[in-house]
Amino acid sequence: MSLEWIGALAATCTTLSFVPQAVKTIRSRDTRGISLLMYATFTFGIACWFGYGLVLHSWPMIVSNAVTFVLSATILALKLKHG
Amino acid sequence: MSLEWIGALAATCTTLSFVPQAVKTIRSRDTRGISLLMYATFTFGIACWFGYGLVLHSWPMIVSNAVTFVLSATILALKLKHG
Repeated sequence: MSLEWIGALAATCTTLSFVPQAVKTIRSRDTRGISLLMYATFTFGIACWFGYGLVLHSWPMIVSNAVTFVLSATILALKLKHG
Repeated sequence: MSLEWIGALAATCTTLSFVPQAVKTIRSRDTRGISLLMYATFTFGIACWFGYGLVLHSWPMIVSNAVTFVLSATILALKLKHG
C-alpha cells in the first residue's frame, strides 16, 4: 500500500504555509508578535535540513528546504529590520 | 562518513524553534502579526508528517512532529481567540 502521498501532502503544506506569513509580514511590517528567537532557530534548522538533503542526495528535501529557507530568512530579515 | 548529526541538529532546531514563539504569544497575546493561514496550513501539515511517521514506523518523526503539533496548535488556537 503506497501512502507516499501523505508525505508529499505534509511537505507541500509545511513548505507553502510560510508564504502567507511572509506576504503578511512584508505588507504589514507588523513584526512585534513574531519571535526573533523562533525565526533565527528555525532558519538555521532549515539550512541544516537543506544540508542533510545534500548528504542524502534527496531532491525533494533540497528543493522544499531551499524554498522554506528563502521564506523564513525573509521573515527573519524583516523582524531584524522592524524589531 | 556519518553525517546523521546534521539531520538530528536540523530536527532539534526546527522543532524547538516553536517554543519561543508559543511562549511569546501566550504571554503577549499579540497575534496581529501572525498569519492565520500560515498556522492553519502548518498545523495540518505537521499532522500529516505525524501520520507519515506512523506509516514509516519512524519514532523520531512521530515524536518531533507530536511536539511541533502541540506548539503550532497552541499558537493557532491563540490566533483564533485573539484575532
